[in-house]
Amino acid sequence: MDSLSPLQKKRLDYKPAIPDLLRDLRKVHFKAMKSSQRPPETLKKLFPKSFDLPTHQLVEGRGEERELKIGALFSGGPAPGGHNVLAGMCDTGAKVFGFFNGPAGLVENQGREIENIDPYRNQGGFDLLGSGRTKIETREQLAASLKTVKERRLDGLVVIGGDDSNTNAALLAEYFLEHGSQTKVVGVPKTIDGDLKSEEIEIPFGFDSACKTYAEIIGNIARDAQSSRKYYHFIKLMGRSASHVTLECALATHPNLALIGEERRGLQEIVGEISEMICKRYEAGKEYGVILLPEGLIEFVPELHQGIQDVPLEKDPHGNIQVSQIQTEKLLVELVKKELQKRRFKGKLNTQEHFLGYEGRSCMPSNFDANYCYTLGRMATLAIRDGLTGVICSVQHLRKSPREWGMKALPLVQLMDLEIRSGKEKPVIKKALVDMKQKSFVYFLRHRKSWELDDQYRYPGPIQFFGDPEVTDAAPLSLMD
Amino acid sequence: MDSLSPLQKKRLDYKPAIPDLLRDLRKVHFKAMKSSQRPPETLKKLFPKSFDLPTHQLVEGRGEERELKIGALFSGGPAPGGHNVLAGMCDTGAKVFGFFNGPAGLVENQGREIENIDPYRNQGGFDLLGSGRTKIETREQLAASLKTVKERRLDGLVVIGGDDSNTNAALLAEYFLEHGSQTKVVGVPKTIDGDLKSEEIEIPFGFDSACKTYAEIIGNIARDAQSSRKYYHFIKLMGRSASHVTLECALATHPNLALIGEERRGLQEIVGEISEMICKRYEAGKEYGVILLPEGLIEFVPELHQGIQDVPLEKDPHGNIQVSQIQTEKLLVELVKKELQKRRFKGKLNTQEHFLGYEGRSCMPSNFDANYCYTLGRMATLAIRDGLTGVICSVQHLRKSPREWGMKALPLVQLMDLEIRSGKEKPVIKKALVDMKQKSFVYFLRHRKSWELDDQYRYPGPIQFFGDPEVTDAAPLSLMD
Repeated sequence: MDSLSPLQKKRLDYKPAIPDLLRDLRKVHFKAMKSSQRPPETLKKLFPKSFDLPTHQLVEGRGEERELKIGALFSGGPAPGGHNVLAGMCDTGAKVFGFFNGPAGLVENQGREIENIDPYRNQGGFDLLGSGRTKIETREQLAASLKTVKERRLDGLVVIGGDDSNTNAALLAEYFLEHGSQTKVVGVPKTIDGDLKSEEIEIPFGFDSACKTYAEIIGNIARDAQSSRKYYHFIKLMGRSASHVTLECALATHPNLALIGEERRGLQEIVGEISEMICKRYEAGKEYGVILLPEGLIEFVPELHQGIQDVPLEKDPHGNIQVSQIQTEKLLVELVKKELQKRRFKGKLNTQEHFLGYEGRSCMPSNFDANYCYTLGRMATLAIRDGLTGVICSVQHLRKSPREWGMKALPLVQLMDLEIRSGKEKPVIKKALVDMKQKSFVYFLRHRKSWELDDQYRYPGPIQFFGDPEVTDAAPLSLMD
Repeated sequence: MDSLSPLQKKRLDYKPAIPDLLRDLRKVHFKAMKSSQRPPETLKKLFPKSFDLPTHQLVEGRGEERELKIGALFSGGPAPGGHNVLAGMCDTGAKVFGFFNGPAGLVENQGREIENIDPYRNQGGFDLLGSGRTKIETREQLAASLKTVKERRLDGLVVIGGDDSNTNAALLAEYFLEHGSQTKVVGVPKTIDGDLKSEEIEIPFGFDSACKTYAEIIGNIARDAQSSRKYYHFIKLMGRSASHVTLECALATHPNLALIGEERRGLQEIVGEISEMICKRYEAGKEYGVILLPEGLIEFVPELHQGIQDVPLEKDPHGNIQVSQIQTEKLLVELVKKELQKRRFKGKLNTQEHFLGYEGRSCMPSNFDANYCYTLGRMATLAIRDGLTGVICSVQHLRKSPREWGMKALPLVQLMDLEIRSGKEKPVIKKALVDMKQKSFVYFLRHRKSWELDDQYRYPGPIQFFGDPEVTDAAPLSLMD
């Protein structure tokens, strides 16, 4: 038996679709735009050099031909498509030096030149380099990072990560500028959580493939529920704070109930709604169902949050509670069972609890993510070529065909704010929560009642890579905004 | 947004591939063969009428044209492809009456004629009819079933189920024969567990799709482990006794360790092996890994079995312990942690536990299962047309192209044995365990050591339906025998 699966092999041959603008790199360049947005004044003292950077847009025009040597690192949890960012960089002709195990590899100057990206094309995971969650913030770490990029003679550094990692990128960019380094720092928006969004960043990479994998599984479980008519499945979905993953999966699968943290409902209200639904379905002869809840629910429900205050919970190096440790789904089931007793419920409540996270973070990227990531890698290289630093790559019109995508480099400081963490003022990238006015949420609001009683489960099935583009190339459903 | 996903819609159009023999039903018939196998004599008193039935093979020759009215029911847990069995029946022109919620629907005469199978073609689940686990064994139940088939004027009854359900089918066939009923009873081998095998039944339907879905998820988790380098993932796989699912998934994904219940190793040996591997990988700088274990492990490990004797466990109506309730994976993790302490292990053991079951039982059937099930449905109808009863459909050469598949109807009694259940002698179909001599197991034995230290993870990716047949149409790997 071959050590590569047939699909792995086939996927190596996939040629990502890219924007027309990116075909010939000698014919495009980044051009400064007038920006309406200004970062909060409070950030000026922390980012004196990079505070006033303009947004740039990729436009037609002469592009410089330069030999580039660029460092790259993965930061935080894996997301499908990371290897394609590297492939997009390598294919410009740039030399790419990969740092091992995330920011730690930069600080410790551990890594290797990527000589052959071919075995990783269109494959999931971050395993070519590994990843890590080290936060670069001390003077020593910043100085060590500067030393590394000098020694490696890097023209630029591409940080592939989420909100915390891109905060790192902003700090590095500022530090490098302050110290007269020529190394540019460019961020690439990654997170399956989907919370690294803004007006300009429609969705980070990885979100699409991870959600499609979760939706496949949820659809399968729903069909099982409807076939066996025996269990309520409580399915918790990864996503640190925001409920983007849950919303996307709900749109894809039409569960009987999906809790969205951002609605900020009280625990009693939630338990009441679930119990009410179970009673109504029982009267309709249905003792089964599917309920989705976001991992981050706990951050929005005061009583849940209260309940866990005393439990000693591990925090990650960024000071975030590791919410995946908290078994919200089991807690909810217990509370619902009590509530049903109170209501003298005559039926049975058999439950199965699931947590979907690791199942989707390293899957093979969908065509959407494969194209998107390859585009991001190509763009990041161009941004460095054109001398931009402290920026993050942003691709516009993601619902359209890749050929029509637009590309901007946004100053990271524009996405930032000051927050109090562990008693200190820290610059952070604002997490984008589900907006109660966004089209996809309004759609969900309008339809969710009809999913409660009738079973209108929608079965997305497994991600397809070949065949009709309607099936293979679809963008995330929540991009309807 | 459409209530059907784009892939659901596309799959409705798939035309299952069938054996050449099944193209024109007027040109084939079942022919009795000389059988070398004889059922155990002890069964003669229980099955006086059906004890001596011969095996039949489908061969070319004139086939009778008859209008048929056939009942069908799903029994037990769902398996991908069930709806295609019904489609295969309907497309012969037979009238198909579907009983609701498994054998209970037959006893209670609840069901409906299937007028339009189209929305269910190539879709997962058993939701068109529902399923159930009622065991038909009392005189009253048997008499009620006979009454139903008489009232419905059924020429035959197709029981789509696993070992227990096909035992039911055998009892019904015998009872109907004893009472002079003209209704034939034909079984169709279903179970994702894969334990309804014999020399003649290469694999039951559903096993392929379920395992492919589990393998997709396991591959994703392995890639995550290798990317994050942080966790040991203990993944428990559904499968009541036999470890076929675990073996198949191990062949598909090359985990660091896969426990096969049938090796009948002691608990200490298992805990020792896992701990040993964790220590060795730690020395190689790896604090992550993937370990597969079968749900049924507990039935083969005396100490595990002992440990749960006192716990009051729910039994299903067939008297089977519901092993999925037992958190073997958590128990093992605790024991390994203790063992590592004893060995003064200096590394960290962070674990994530998973249980894969409901994620795959109702997925969209792979092309393999879609073809196989459609073939089984067509065959079952022919068996009834040709007057066979007390038989199960068996398709040969499943590794070859469907065009070359061969088809037999095996007397169910040939698969049976007498077992003591709850103190009484009961006829049961022998569960097929993993055979230590089967080729796929020998292959596994030969390679598993090399998977322990080196990461040779194989990533199957999601089931594909379109494109290269090497990717879309592959049979299960354990069919190498």
